[in-house]
Amino acid sequence: MKPSGEDEAAPAGGPWEECFEAAVQLALRAGQIIRKALSEEKRVSTKTSAADLVTETDHLVEGLIISELQKRFPSHRFIAEESAAAGAKCVLTPSPTWIVDPIDGTCNFVHRFPTVAVSIGFAVDQELEFGVIYHCTEERLYTGRRGRGAFCNGQRLRVSGETDISKALVLTEIGPKRDPATLKLFLSNMERLLHAKAHGVRVIGSSTLALCHLASGAADAYYQFGLHCWDLAAATVIIREAGGIVMDTSGGPLDLMSCRVVAAGTREMATLIAQALQTINYGRDDEK
Amino acid sequence: MKPSGEDEAAPAGGPWEECFEAAVQLALRAGQIIRKALSEEKRVSTKTSAADLVTETDHLVEGLIISELQKRFPSHRFIAEESAAAGAKCVLTPSPTWIVDPIDGTCNFVHRFPTVAVSIGFAVDQELEFGVIYHCTEERLYTGRRGRGAFCNGQRLRVSGETDISKALVLTEIGPKRDPATLKLFLSNMERLLHAKAHGVRVIGSSTLALCHLASGAADAYYQFGLHCWDLAAATVIIREAGGIVMDTSGGPLDLMSCRVVAAGTREMATLIAQALQTINYGRDDEK
Repeated sequence: MKPSGEDEAAPAGGPWEECFEAAVQLALRAGQIIRKALSEEKRVSTKTSAADLVTETDHLVEGLIISELQKRFPSHRFIAEESAAAGAKCVLTPSPTWIVDPIDGTCNFVHRFPTVAVSIGFAVDQELEFGVIYHCTEERLYTGRRGRGAFCNGQRLRVSGETDISKALVLTEIGPKRDPATLKLFLSNMERLLHAKAHGVRVIGSSTLALCHLASGAADAYYQFGLHCWDLAAATVIIREAGGIVMDTSGGPLDLMSCRVVAAGTREMATLIAQALQTINYGRDDEK
Repeated sequence: MKPSGEDEAAPAGGPWEECFEAAVQLALRAGQIIRKALSEEKRVSTKTSAADLVTETDHLVEGLIISELQKRFPSHRFIAEESAAAGAKCVLTPSPTWIVDPIDGTCNFVHRFPTVAVSIGFAVDQELEFGVIYHCTEERLYTGRRGRGAFCNGQRLRVSGETDISKALVLTEIGPKRDPATLKLFLSNMERLLHAKAHGVRVIGSSTLALCHLASGAADAYYQFGLHCWDLAAATVIIREAGGIVMDTSGGPLDLMSCRVVAAGTREMATLIAQALQTINYGRDDEK
């Protein structure tokens, strides 16, 4: 996190206060379960592909979060990674909707690579209201609420103001598809950014935490094809409230279901990155 | 760090005990300076290339480490990143020699991306005796002493026993050269590993900390072209003492001055990675 010398408490109150507080408590509880699991031997229960492992802890944590929220908010709807994998539809209606990734960085988790997060987003009227992300191993809690700022462990977050790609630290992720054509496009996009003299490119294995680095000003841009709405929802609020931009890779407005994103501290940087990229088609979350 | 359930203290004593203790104390002091600098605005004093920033803190930390060690051990020799950049020769003689990287992950440091380390290695008779690496922002101290094991904050480190590339988390770094031909080779190597179905590839911006993840079992392999002896020296002892392998990308024994390395938890994995790679020529540290 970029220390800013400030230590402001997020203002309290607002219509979704109770939901926000529930999200924070559940993210912390989930983080505890994940940390405990990281200290034990793990059995991988199902494996859809080498790059997309689904572990028992993933199921356990998602079950905990959703059952607790359903008890407290029975009329709310849910979009969540493991439920979607089991066939649940990803449709964002105007109803209050929780968008949950129980373990972002599952491959990291399986290897005990300490870059793993819980991500809980919340939308009403199809608009993102708040996001809570907990970096389990480093015990960093990122939060953002619409109109109320973004924070990490109580410290206000601000994006970088960088507009020059040659001074930019750019984050990306490989994405789940590993067929030769997709890999070619992924590598060609990385090559374009390196040719544009991006100061550095990082791949840390967690979209959510990469987006938190962006919100904290520790990185200047992020792009990815093949991420899902549960990777994006919470982080989008946090980045916007830290002063940043989240948009579609076409340069148009963000479409949470489009499985692609560019985010940056400035609109200039986001536009430059979007212009440099070739599209990798991953379909849509709401058409699966 | 991979928690192993153990909490063993490293055994004390040995001929280089005083040197080892000095390295630990200096790494912690240097880490404090780096953490403080990360909380302040930084001016980049010299810039040799966009990917190789040299900051005031780099100079300050290297100066502190070397001047303190010179006072205590006046007959010892030094190889260090900033001194080498200023023209000092990198020659490993049989004399006791300190091999120092004051800030590994300088590009991360400049961006306040929290993956930054101090690395202090020590060799006698051209053999590495111990390594001390301090992950400044996460306050993790990695140590390894020849014949005495490797530890992180007092907890014993053990590499992963993985031999199957399709189950491997592989770490690498882009390297300082960014001309089109070098980038092509870098990306082609990444493509080869992804075609071999490596479970994941990560680029975190610090060779030293990537090698520490390998020592802790959080990653299964690491390779890089274009790193220097000060990126490798301390980490090599830590990996070997955690049960791992550090070798040349040709498959032969490690050459600390050859600017290239493959490291893995097992010899099988290291050999598979070495066989998959195309060589990127960065010359030698001792011929610059």
